[in-house]
Amino acid sequence: METLEAINTRRSIRKFILKEIPDDAVTKILHAGMCAPTSGNQRPWQFIVIRDRVMIDQFIEAYPYSKKMLPDVPVTIMVCFDRNLEKYEKRWQIDCANATLCMLLATHSLGYGGLWLEIYPIEERINKIQDSFGIPKSVVPFALVTIGHAAEEKPPIERFDQSIIHYDKW
Amino acid sequence: METLEAINTRRSIRKFILKEIPDDAVTKILHAGMCAPTSGNQRPWQFIVIRDRVMIDQFIEAYPYSKKMLPDVPVTIMVCFDRNLEKYEKRWQIDCANATLCMLLATHSLGYGGLWLEIYPIEERINKIQDSFGIPKSVVPFALVTIGHAAEEKPPIERFDQSIIHYDKW
Repeated sequence: METLEAINTRRSIRKFILKEIPDDAVTKILHAGMCAPTSGNQRPWQFIVIRDRVMIDQFIEAYPYSKKMLPDVPVTIMVCFDRNLEKYEKRWQIDCANATLCMLLATHSLGYGGLWLEIYPIEERINKIQDSFGIPKSVVPFALVTIGHAAEEKPPIERFDQSIIHYDKW
Repeated sequence: METLEAINTRRSIRKFILKEIPDDAVTKILHAGMCAPTSGNQRPWQFIVIRDRVMIDQFIEAYPYSKKMLPDVPVTIMVCFDRNLEKYEKRWQIDCANATLCMLLATHSLGYGGLWLEIYPIEERINKIQDSFGIPKSVVPFALVTIGHAAEEKPPIERFDQSIIHYDKW
């Protein structure tokens, strides 16, 4: 899918039909995440690809709302921030957001349904997921991206708003 | 340009040839920024389109390194966080990063050279830019995106790294 079309038509998908996703699509989506811009090339991220239903249930326990969609999603990818890889302070949320968004756009452009499930900044959710996934305290689970087959069609929303554009000065 | 190609081949462009950029390209890029994912649909952003050379010089004064490239870039867009639009705490850096990245990918996919010039989190830079652009203290200038004609060709970097992928657990 063309880039502007992918950006403009992306919607948060919350209804899925459980069907397989090929491994090479998952690899392409991971690759996209690793191509995200990052401050001073620090790339402070690590990824967990989750297909195991037991682990998905663990995630749902930490984030009950995700029970509405995750049972119908065959594969998800968790973006984590690894403090050991940090070189520049106060940039990691930006870097991890960039990796998450690249994966979300890749998911949509490949024809799958993506959803950004927020882990950071909710402390309780972070702690539970660290415990259940064996994630060390030096690593912060940041977001979970779904890769599923959409069971809903959502038309693009017109989001252009001239009133928030300034010219040359505020 | 196809989405995965745009994500995988995007590079930071730092050399430009000064030539016009059509208004409709700038509009498409702004549109892309406004389509970025945002927490709870809060969209806490505002944009400043800068073509005025006097204002570009003001920016360079706050961020001397940008003197290497900005004199050769006809138009830039500043992404700002407006605290008055914030509904959910601790998400604004993520939201503004998403808007910045959508604009950067749109710029590259349209064949122009983009660079993410970091304003946040550097306090001194934020303060100087607030002063020179008349930005109120309730608004944080976050990043500046260049839209220029690249004067350098940079091949894609292979960024895939199997060692940072985990499966099901850490």
